[in-house]
Amino acid sequence: MWGGRFAAGPDEVMAAINVSIGFDRRMAKQDIEGSLAHVRMLEARGMISAADSSAIQEGLSRIASEIRDGAFPFRDAFEDIHMNVEARLAELIGQAAGRLHTARSRNDQVATDFRLWLRDMIDATVPEVKALIAALVDKAEAHAADVMPGFTHMQSAQPVTFGHHCLAYAEMLGRDLGRLADARKRLNESPLGAAALAGTSFPIDRQQTAAALGFDQPMRNSLDAVSARDFAIEYLSAAAILSMHLSRLAEEIVVWSTPQFGFVRLSDGFSTGSSIMPQKRNPDAAELVRGKTGRVFGALIGLLTVMKGLSMTYAKDMQEDKELVFGAADTLSLCLAAMTGMVADMTIDAQRMRAAAASGFATATDLADWLVRTLKVPFREAHHITGRIVKAAEAKGVELTDLPLAEMQKVEPRITDAVFGILTVEASVASRTSFGGTAPDNVKREAAAWRTRLQSL
Amino acid sequence: MWGGRFAAGPDEVMAAINVSIGFDRRMAKQDIEGSLAHVRMLEARGMISAADSSAIQEGLSRIASEIRDGAFPFRDAFEDIHMNVEARLAELIGQAAGRLHTARSRNDQVATDFRLWLRDMIDATVPEVKALIAALVDKAEAHAADVMPGFTHMQSAQPVTFGHHCLAYAEMLGRDLGRLADARKRLNESPLGAAALAGTSFPIDRQQTAAALGFDQPMRNSLDAVSARDFAIEYLSAAAILSMHLSRLAEEIVVWSTPQFGFVRLSDGFSTGSSIMPQKRNPDAAELVRGKTGRVFGALIGLLTVMKGLSMTYAKDMQEDKELVFGAADTLSLCLAAMTGMVADMTIDAQRMRAAAASGFATATDLADWLVRTLKVPFREAHHITGRIVKAAEAKGVELTDLPLAEMQKVEPRITDAVFGILTVEASVASRTSFGGTAPDNVKREAAAWRTRLQSL
Amino acid sequence: MWGGRFAAGPDEVMAAINVSIGFDRRMAKQDIEGSLAHVRMLEARGMISAADSSAIQEGLSRIASEIRDGAFPFRDAFEDIHMNVEARLAELIGQAAGRLHTARSRNDQVATDFRLWLRDMIDATVPEVKALIAALVDKAEAHAADVMPGFTHMQSAQPVTFGHHCLAYAEMLGRDLGRLADARKRLNESPLGAAALAGTSFPIDRQQTAAALGFDQPMRNSLDAVSARDFAIEYLSAAAILSMHLSRLAEEIVVWSTPQFGFVRLSDGFSTGSSIMPQKRNPDAAELVRGKTGRVFGALIGLLTVMKGLSMTYAKDMQEDKELVFGAADTLSLCLAAMTGMVADMTIDAQRMRAAAASGFATATDLADWLVRTLKVPFREAHHITGRIVKAAEAKGVELTDLPLAEMQKVEPRITDAVFGILTVEASVASRTSFGGTAPDNVKREAAAWRTRLQSL
Amino acid sequence: MWGGRFAAGPDEVMAAINVSIGFDRRMAKQDIEGSLAHVRMLEARGMISAADSSAIQEGLSRIASEIRDGAFPFRDAFEDIHMNVEARLAELIGQAAGRLHTARSRNDQVATDFRLWLRDMIDATVPEVKALIAALVDKAEAHAADVMPGFTHMQSAQPVTFGHHCLAYAEMLGRDLGRLADARKRLNESPLGAAALAGTSFPIDRQQTAAALGFDQPMRNSLDAVSARDFAIEYLSAAAILSMHLSRLAEEIVVWSTPQFGFVRLSDGFSTGSSIMPQKRNPDAAELVRGKTGRVFGALIGLLTVMKGLSMTYAKDMQEDKELVFGAADTLSLCLAAMTGMVADMTIDAQRMRAAAASGFATATDLADWLVRTLKVPFREAHHITGRIVKAAEAKGVELTDLPLAEMQKVEPRITDAVFGILTVEASVASRTSFGGTAPDNVKREAAAWRTRLQSL
Repeated sequence: MWGGRFAAGPDEVMAAINVSIGFDRRMAKQDIEGSLAHVRMLEARGMISAADSSAIQEGLSRIASEIRDGAFPFRDAFEDIHMNVEARLAELIGQAAGRLHTARSRNDQVATDFRLWLRDMIDATVPEVKALIAALVDKAEAHAADVMPGFTHMQSAQPVTFGHHCLAYAEMLGRDLGRLADARKRLNESPLGAAALAGTSFPIDRQQTAAALGFDQPMRNSLDAVSARDFAIEYLSAAAILSMHLSRLAEEIVVWSTPQFGFVRLSDGFSTGSSIMPQKRNPDAAELVRGKTGRVFGALIGLLTVMKGLSMTYAKDMQEDKELVFGAADTLSLCLAAMTGMVADMTIDAQRMRAAAASGFATATDLADWLVRTLKVPFREAHHITGRIVKAAEAKGVELTDLPLAEMQKVEPRITDAVFGILTVEASVASRTSFGGTAPDNVKREAAAWRTRLQSL
Repeated sequence: MWGGRFAAGPDEVMAAINVSIGFDRRMAKQDIEGSLAHVRMLEARGMISAADSSAIQEGLSRIASEIRDGAFPFRDAFEDIHMNVEARLAELIGQAAGRLHTARSRNDQVATDFRLWLRDMIDATVPEVKALIAALVDKAEAHAADVMPGFTHMQSAQPVTFGHHCLAYAEMLGRDLGRLADARKRLNESPLGAAALAGTSFPIDRQQTAAALGFDQPMRNSLDAVSARDFAIEYLSAAAILSMHLSRLAEEIVVWSTPQFGFVRLSDGFSTGSSIMPQKRNPDAAELVRGKTGRVFGALIGLLTVMKGLSMTYAKDMQEDKELVFGAADTLSLCLAAMTGMVADMTIDAQRMRAAAASGFATATDLADWLVRTLKVPFREAHHITGRIVKAAEAKGVELTDLPLAEMQKVEPRITDAVFGILTVEASVASRTSFGGTAPDNVKREAAAWRTRLQSL
Repeated sequence: MWGGRFAAGPDEVMAAINVSIGFDRRMAKQDIEGSLAHVRMLEARGMISAADSSAIQEGLSRIASEIRDGAFPFRDAFEDIHMNVEARLAELIGQAAGRLHTARSRNDQVATDFRLWLRDMIDATVPEVKALIAALVDKAEAHAADVMPGFTHMQSAQPVTFGHHCLAYAEMLGRDLGRLADARKRLNESPLGAAALAGTSFPIDRQQTAAALGFDQPMRNSLDAVSARDFAIEYLSAAAILSMHLSRLAEEIVVWSTPQFGFVRLSDGFSTGSSIMPQKRNPDAAELVRGKTGRVFGALIGLLTVMKGLSMTYAKDMQEDKELVFGAADTLSLCLAAMTGMVADMTIDAQRMRAAAASGFATATDLADWLVRTLKVPFREAHHITGRIVKAAEAKGVELTDLPLAEMQKVEPRITDAVFGILTVEASVASRTSFGGTAPDNVKREAAAWRTRLQSL
Repeated sequence: MWGGRFAAGPDEVMAAINVSIGFDRRMAKQDIEGSLAHVRMLEARGMISAADSSAIQEGLSRIASEIRDGAFPFRDAFEDIHMNVEARLAELIGQAAGRLHTARSRNDQVATDFRLWLRDMIDATVPEVKALIAALVDKAEAHAADVMPGFTHMQSAQPVTFGHHCLAYAEMLGRDLGRLADARKRLNESPLGAAALAGTSFPIDRQQTAAALGFDQPMRNSLDAVSARDFAIEYLSAAAILSMHLSRLAEEIVVWSTPQFGFVRLSDGFSTGSSIMPQKRNPDAAELVRGKTGRVFGALIGLLTVMKGLSMTYAKDMQEDKELVFGAADTLSLCLAAMTGMVADMTIDAQRMRAAAASGFATATDLADWLVRTLKVPFREAHHITGRIVKAAEAKGVELTDLPLAEMQKVEPRITDAVFGILTVEASVASRTSFGGTAPDNVKREAAAWRTRLQSL
């Protein structure tokens, strides 16, 4: 494979550490696409005869079928997917196969394959993210007016609606889609034709191969083309942030599924039991989604580590890029599907949520705001007054809605019984009509907007 | 500060772990900008009198001067920058200060400040990256035709030009600018008006404050507005990738400065000596740039860790976002300046580079390509023939240019002395005229294109 | 500083990136200790006169006082703590100062200082960890018999005692102490005398300086002595694992402080309020402890990144070690103190815990075990029977304790009313007397054992 | 599997995310060992009849053979290795199989299996590390007196011997062995008998099972036993540090194999060629060892992320521990073998190393030390004098050995021609006889000491 200059073959451990066909076979489809584009260009530019070109194309098609049918002989002896395909091609069509690698190197070939693979993966991930957003939007519409405690520091802060909470995740995922789209756009340039690293003296047409493979344009510097892996790290960053978002939702599902919260109930399909405790209903899927964040973070830091301080251009270290990206991408896809299933299937206990929202003086801010709005008290003073009223309520063991007006007036005599109109959780959420606020009407409008956005994305 | 409901003050260690004024004072400018936009909106929407608004605005201006003059009393007792400013405002203008926090919370305030700060930082970083690109483009133009070994696996592979090598880094940095721009665009939405988490019942105008602060639009979900930190992680990802790119260049400078390579010589201004070995010229700045990658990677994984599995909405964990981002941003800025200085100042030893490029059979590929082009030998066979010719040259201890034609013809009789026309390193690089190839004309054209691009970016 | 061979001084940005006195001044005490040991050895071995030695020792003592009094002039111009001290020494005692650096280099000096500093820091951390264990042991004794739900998957699995839960953390922290002790032992070897990297031709006595500085022995290889940083990474690993343990406890405190759980109440001293929601009691300290995990993880990955792929021996990249370690160590110390305060101060709501433990069929396992023990049913079958009984109880809306015997007998006729003796949570925990089990007697015995262990550690 | 209480089976995606038999089958051996120890204890304590015990033991032995022979039917439907084994046992021996899980849970079972597996892996890794040390010691003995440049900042600082350099890595690896041993010791406690989390009411004997499985003792707290994963993270930390050490050596091999350095030549067995550049000899194995560091760092941060903020006790997130640890352990093993092979096989070019060491004024420090020793010049002044002499030599374009005495005396008149006796690289290394210094005698003594140490470790 490396010409006739090596006296001895590779050591056994060398072969073991070097071989990549075990994982880069996942890029077989992209490898063949790249070769097809390359050979057509070679023919168009007169570097190879029409007959050889046809033979090569037919051979590659046959290899593609073999792979689809599971009949392709993947062989460690040929090290990687590129050599496996070329070696098989030689078996199928003979000497003409040796013309395919003209004006090309494994360095630009693997960069091309990997970009194509990652582009395909992003294209497959986008609808998975959209499916999760759609599931959240469904829940948001169904529960646009169902009140739950809005938490800060995991303490009930102010009432919000469950629909509003669901749409917060839709916003996060929307930005995740933006990051994936940006990563896709930036990676979508063709390294093919950079050859080993310097370009080539053959009269190739990189625009043609780029266009044939759906790339926006050829990369402008051949050294960069074979040694850049920022595209893979950018994808892993986007994946890590998306995983982080999923881990937050997963954490909430785990907490909300506790008997103490009891806000949601996962379906049987997304629960597991225990081998020893028959009463358990465990939110395993949510835990796994949360835990798998570790794998994606690890892949990100893994590839950053690989590339840190690496001299130009291609170095074998870079072979580590693929398993890290494959692992993260598979993980993400599984987590998105599991989360979509969980969200779609889960049942909300609106009553428990409402009850939780109505306890703990959650409308204290509404009282403070009322003091500002109605009595023109400066906010800071209103805040102090409210604090004293809450203390009084707490001392009596009642919620604000049940604190007698007289008690409030002990703290601030100008309070009237109009105040009770704003102390219920329903009044509270209904009043939050500011742009982006939790008012049910806002939630409905935003859910509808999301439906439109999902169409256009 | 927290109303009248706490019996005891914070424990001493609690105060120590909680206080953030030591670092969030860096956002003082943004905090005041945010407050000015907020109070003008409150006045415009009738929530506060013109007189109070004026008093607050004047007070805030005075605070801004105090900060500029180093006269502002930053106090731990007020915990963070928001309370420090508000407390000072109360000292300066009295009770009206208490109206500023109407329809606002520290949750949306800190998110606003931090986005503004990061936007400012990105805007300051962009010209730093461009300055480095410009320094590389200068070097590329000056050395568009100077030949160096093109390395793969740190082994000389094919001759390239030093200018081409410089422009490979320009390409990487160009994508880094793209990532920073995308991050800036995505973060440039206003959380202000989300209040604590639910929005507000006050008739605020979030479009007005968003526009006043240069945000593209208000964020659409109040819960998301106060709890999202993906914008900071996205920035850290872009910073980590940029750092990785700098670490690769830094590594090359370190290696190229060794006596063994001797490709470049750093200026005195960017070298250090040794306290014990007087002859040393150490590339400390390059090493520091390489090493500081660790800090930026650490900040990225640090904030990912903070946000992993965090329930909504705001939690105090998020206070950790700032020191991580500040540290990474400062590091990046310092590294960019140091790298720009090093590149601009360094001297190239074109002769040593050329000599290195001309040794080690670096034009073997040119020979193989000649066999394909001239003798129509399939590439794979040409590769084998070339391998045998290299072996012959190695046995005689000569380079390919000095191997007698007869020796070559022993391997492949059809070779003619026309072959010597393509075996020099100058011929080799000149022949790489494919798009993105290393031919000096390509390099000059790309350098010129970069100059134009730098203007428009 | 670097001899007379540099024509131009350092560039401004070079100075900025290079200077370390801003942070390595923290090692001033250790730097002076190291110099004192070194000069005494030089004198003992005849390399320096008694008079010069005295002058140097007196000068160093004076510098130590200046530093203690805040009177020492730390100067950026002298770059680092080593040169600052030496320059000041020259100012104080004149030319003799120039003899101190005989047979030494900044390379072995900084390695010595940093090991001493980290050893001191570990010695300061150990009692902080022990204080937290002690606080947990106090709580364990006080609540050795208080029943809480034992959670798996955050679902109530089987009743346990709160004391047992506290002691689980004591076990984790005990292993953390072991890791710190191992790290301390491994780092406690002296690099002093390795000089720049090769050792020295001066007749130094490394055993003497090692002993004087409390090191177990001198390091055996001079190259390793100046370039090893695994000791710092090992410390950061131990710190990261400890932080991870703290983050788990912090998470539980946050969750248990929710009104939904209500298991614990933090003292006022460790709670904060809200600037807008007067009713809030936020577990900020617990959240900060949880969040600060990110900083420690980041420091670990940061230093691993710095050292990855670094050629031997000393490189300036290594200067990054200090801020990463300092930051992690300070963070850890603060988190330990905060956690100890929280645990010591917090109040347990034993009634709510007990109620939570008694609901949700938490003694189903006890029933299954009873079937195995009493009726000799194979465990797997017992598990199925119990599942059906739980289902019956759930259908009736009662706990197992309230399910009529007849209902149970419908599933398994051989069940007798003896079964009710094992269905209470008190019976359940009391029965778990296996080694390490949650039975109150076990908990008391283990708490007592911990008291003894804390003495001897 | 989870009793009779679930109406619907798991969703398809739930099954896909939940199933672990694809990877935890690697613990089959340990799972069976654990079950054998458990059933023998159950019999000894009278919880199960001798007949059932025999049947179970025979069944387990048969399963062990099936696994060895590749005949065991691993089935996704049984989710994990524990249920696969138990289900198969039921098929083989019938109802008695249902008694095996008495007084046990998958929670303590998986913790036991994983600790046993990791202990086995550490025991397999230790000889691999020792083999690498041995290869380095061989090289150190063979090259105890071969001079190479000692590098700091990758600049030649002082001459050292290649043997000394090799032994620096032996020291690092020696500490790595220490960390592995400490990790092994700390993890070697038995969780078996903690049952689900609370211990058990059955009269089990945890000492017996611990002893049978080679554990030092049972873990003292059942909650900790099932939820601790610090043992796995500690292993990954040790692995990460070891990988970091390997990455440094790998980097040096890559750099030293360049034509510019030419210090070492890898054997054919550890080199690869290029598909397009026939002259290439690439150090792929070294690059892969360097690159695979990323995977190990990623696994470490991955598991830290999984465990961050996880409430007690067992959560399904923890299932992520295994693939991360398996991947890192396999990687490490492969890297150790590859590095051992490379080191053992590589050829040293002692002449080029010596020539590099002799250039660049590498004995300047020797000159400075001579001035201190012979002329009693204070070190700082000696350093300045040497700097001026180096400058003079540089101006003349000669090394110090070739600078006429008269030139030296222009700078310092008291210099005599005795100075030339210390200016050769051989004299330099021979003079470094301080403990740990690079003198060939030291190197030989240390190499011999390592041979002894390797026996006893």
